[in-house]
Amino acid sequence: MRIDIITVVPDILKSPFEASIMKRSIEKGLVEVHLHNLREYTTDNYRQVDDYQFGGGAGMVMMIEPIDKCISKLKSERDYDEVIYMTPDGETLNQRIANQLSLKGNLIILCGHYKGVDQRVRDHFVTKEISVGDYVLSGGELGALILCDAIIRLIPGVLGNETSALTDSFQDNLLAPPIYTRPAEYKGWKVPEVLTSGNFPKIEAWREEQAYQITKERRPDLLDE
Amino acid sequence: MRIDIITVVPDILKSPFEASIMKRSIEKGLVEVHLHNLREYTTDNYRQVDDYQFGGGAGMVMMIEPIDKCISKLKSERDYDEVIYMTPDGETLNQRIANQLSLKGNLIILCGHYKGVDQRVRDHFVTKEISVGDYVLSGGELGALILCDAIIRLIPGVLGNETSALTDSFQDNLLAPPIYTRPAEYKGWKVPEVLTSGNFPKIEAWREEQAYQITKERRPDLLDE
Repeated sequence: MRIDIITVVPDILKSPFEASIMKRSIEKGLVEVHLHNLREYTTDNYRQVDDYQFGGGAGMVMMIEPIDKCISKLKSERDYDEVIYMTPDGETLNQRIANQLSLKGNLIILCGHYKGVDQRVRDHFVTKEISVGDYVLSGGELGALILCDAIIRLIPGVLGNETSALTDSFQDNLLAPPIYTRPAEYKGWKVPEVLTSGNFPKIEAWREEQAYQITKERRPDLLDE
Repeated sequence: MRIDIITVVPDILKSPFEASIMKRSIEKGLVEVHLHNLREYTTDNYRQVDDYQFGGGAGMVMMIEPIDKCISKLKSERDYDEVIYMTPDGETLNQRIANQLSLKGNLIILCGHYKGVDQRVRDHFVTKEISVGDYVLSGGELGALILCDAIIRLIPGVLGNETSALTDSFQDNLLAPPIYTRPAEYKGWKVPEVLTSGNFPKIEAWREEQAYQITKERRPDLLDE
């Protein structure tokens, strides 16, 4: 898989790709991530990437031309499955979308900044709009990181233990059951006895029941899906 | 406002706080962000922060003791409004929660990693559990970044133009209307005439209508709230 991220602030994106699972998956050659600084696709001396809104109003808008230039250059080099725009009014990311995208070959992720991109970019270049949640961020960069992490960890070989991702929350529309590790008692707080019983069918039943109860209590909407 | 982030991979968090709006708000003294490496609160030679699950199963669990030590040290230095744990089964972050948290004084954000933290941490130390969305990430760090960005940009003085945040998506349960900037025509694609009309009441009415239509089409659930 190859992911090309287009941004006006590539510096934001550096450290998360240089640590932990995303770093290791890049090193293993399971995914390539390329950052593109939109200012390198400007033609004026000021390297201008944004301008005032037509019709007035607070906040700057990212101009169409540098984005067109960058996307067109990438598309001339290879085919892309999707050109994704990170925006709070896009389709809300969930595990199903992450699963689908993890099967793709090449993706472009366009990060909005300031008030967002000129609408004509969305109308003519973007094939998929994704939101990471119902809140506003200062740019699409952190959303792009979330999307990359959610996708990359699903690529076979990225997680050490392949079953690990399958027992996570959401993969079966249930939240995860409580988990405990040593010590069995800490300041008088004990681990549930069943977990130290060695009776694995009983442990499995307890976990299923807990997962169901927690989901019913916290997220009954997941049970209806 | 002061935010203390507890993590086993502080490196992930560095660059986003050293760029853009989060950097500027820290430089202006509007917010302090401190990263705490959980390994510094271990007592063994291996600086162990995680261990196998009681009852078996894939994935490691973060141990209670280093987390207790770190949180207790911070609490001995000042009072905290909330100890927030980032977890996919927490309350889903939205703009209302971001607004509320932006008014707080001191926050601790605990990032889970691997399969998450020992349940006793959640039962005895955590006061609020937040999820950034219905998808699984490789750790709570990216969620913590999202939470910080969503909160910090709402602190008065952080955004250059204070009205900018108020016209964003979600602040009035409506998605934002389309935005355009120069040039007025690009490759034959034109900006809607009304926006270049100079008739501001008409522009305002067009934007309201567009925001309503887009919300109705993409997110009818927001109109019911």
